Amino acid sequence: MSILVVGSVALDSIQTPFGRVREALGGAATYFSTVASLYDTVSLVGVVGSDFPREHIDFLVGRGVDIRGLQVAAGKTFRWSGRYDYDMNHCETLATELNVFATFRPTLPEQYRDAEYVFLANIDPELQMSVLDQVRSPRLIALDTMNYWIDYKHDALTEALKRVDIVLMNEAEARQFAKTFSLIRAAHKILELGPKALVIKKGEYGAVLFANGGDPTRTYFFAPAYPLEKIADPTGAGDTFAGGFMGYLAHAHAGAAGGALDNMAIRQAIVHGTVVASFTVEGFSLDRLRTLSLDDIRRRYEAFKRFTSFEVPCPWLGTCERLKQAQPGRDA
Amino acid sequence: MSILVVGSVALDSIQTPFGRVREALGGAATYFSTVASLYDTVSLVGVVGSDFPREHIDFLVGRGVDIRGLQVAAGKTFRWSGRYDYDMNHCETLATELNVFATFRPTLPEQYRDAEYVFLANIDPELQMSVLDQVRSPRLIALDTMNYWIDYKHDALTEALKRVDIVLMNEAEARQFAKTFSLIRAAHKILELGPKALVIKKGEYGAVLFANGGDPTRTYFFAPAYPLEKIADPTGAGDTFAGGFMGYLAHAHAGAAGGALDNMAIRQAIVHGTVVASFTVEGFSLDRLRTLSLDDIRRRYEAFKRFTSFEVPCPWLGTCERLKQAQPGRDA
Repeated sequence: MSILVVGSVALDSIQTPFGRVREALGGAATYFSTVASLYDTVSLVGVVGSDFPREHIDFLVGRGVDIRGLQVAAGKTFRWSGRYDYDMNHCETLATELNVFATFRPTLPEQYRDAEYVFLANIDPELQMSVLDQVRSPRLIALDTMNYWIDYKHDALTEALKRVDIVLMNEAEARQFAKTFSLIRAAHKILELGPKALVIKKGEYGAVLFANGGDPTRTYFFAPAYPLEKIADPTGAGDTFAGGFMGYLAHAHAGAAGGALDNMAIRQAIVHGTVVASFTVEGFSLDRLRTLSLDDIRRRYEAFKRFTSFEVPCPWLGTCERLKQAQPGRDA
Repeated sequence: MSILVVGSVALDSIQTPFGRVREALGGAATYFSTVASLYDTVSLVGVVGSDFPREHIDFLVGRGVDIRGLQVAAGKTFRWSGRYDYDMNHCETLATELNVFATFRPTLPEQYRDAEYVFLANIDPELQMSVLDQVRSPRLIALDTMNYWIDYKHDALTEALKRVDIVLMNEAEARQFAKTFSLIRAAHKILELGPKALVIKKGEYGAVLFANGGDPTRTYFFAPAYPLEKIADPTGAGDTFAGGFMGYLAHAHAGAAGGALDNMAIRQAIVHGTVVASFTVEGFSLDRLRTLSLDDIRRRYEAFKRFTSFEVPCPWLGTCERLKQAQPGRDA
């Protein structure tokens, strides 16, 4: 009874320069659960149609995901199709068939209502709030969203943001929501609504953390994307980022004996999200994630540490200062 | 007699959403020298016209820059004008008047030929090579270039790359030169020509180091851009990045008692370049750099260290592993 996720379960048709799949398992809640279940128990709330393949249900159950909250409705499962060109940071949506997802109303089974960690994947912010009305005493709530809700449900989204601890957005969404080009100012605007932290996802350019309270030069954190020679399919990168992020936070928080999550734990969670997303994009659909282990994640986490480490010179340019003192005529 | 730079000295007219300047001091060699002179002595080779304002000469001399290699030719100084919109990573060139720069042939004064650190700013690769023919025994050579030379002087540029230790390029240039979208593959292609290291500048998305030799997971390094709330004018960011980078390398190398530059020194040099560039873009033209000190750089360097630090959890998700062992039915 640890991590609750509410979001889409879908069948995705995807084209990239490196291949294509048709009606493969997809959806934000699916990607999230597949990863987060490596870290902790996950309960899923979503909806599929009566056409949803049994093998996908079996896969989720096999991961230990609690699917008592996965509704099976009369009709067809949500389908999405999209195409990526070489610039994998941009996706062209070819078709969105909401089907049973159009009338989805998240209803939490009684056993879900004690969930401690809640991830509200990208759905209508009014539905996100209805989930919060159903959980009793969550310890940590995170929310993702998309440009559609920023455009058409701005007020509801603003209300939802006031009720969560951590917001995940991509770069364009943060700018769009805050109506400013400066990411720093966008972050201030979003954090002023109440969240403790904002994680801005930049795709191939990494992720940035802005956190409320204290000296901003001590709370800001930047993680690059994990370098990959070849990306097969970026679909699900953001949702599995969230899965690694929340999975690790739930784990770290459990270890913190009820204490508050500190900035370092959030940084570590961002690195987990980054590493997990790097595996996701190496295969189509969820293919690479099916065999992913915590040990795989550890190896890339440790490499990532090496990719980003540097020292502060000590003493600070001492020799240089001496050189300059020996040349008193120089105006530096 | 330490750092030699060869490149443009220009008068720039710049428009950004935050203001404009007309015929302000600019040019790659100017930006580079202004910064590198904080770290070590700099000798400049370039050309200006007879209209070049005396105050700019005085400024460079005041920085301790040796300008015996700055030719004054009959005619007008190189002029460039450009415009940036809110997306400061892209610049629209409005006009390029090469003037005396069109017939520039770098000639090193005798005293320059013992230069130890050579920075070949963005000029015709044939001229870059003519500079290398004139220096006697440089310890370290770095080269910058641009899309024009990649298009029109590809063979000469390839020859020049074979003769240098460190290559600086921006992201699009590296892809264009290597004819691949993958930055990792582009880096391999460039390093195969002989350079020890390639630094790919990504503007607001930071800089990446690829280095030859050894385990790539130990030589790759990523530095984000320093976060700024407001950018006035991005002009010169790349050239001052190079100035901080080479300035620090010359300093560190001098301290290394003739030893080889290690990967950590190059990482630190990249952070110096990043920090220096962050000051550059806060003002128009060279305005912010006129009062920049090594102490200003130190403060941002230390903040940068905080922005990018995280720990590897130890023990690695031990609690989590225990949780999972307690649930033997889960398939993880």
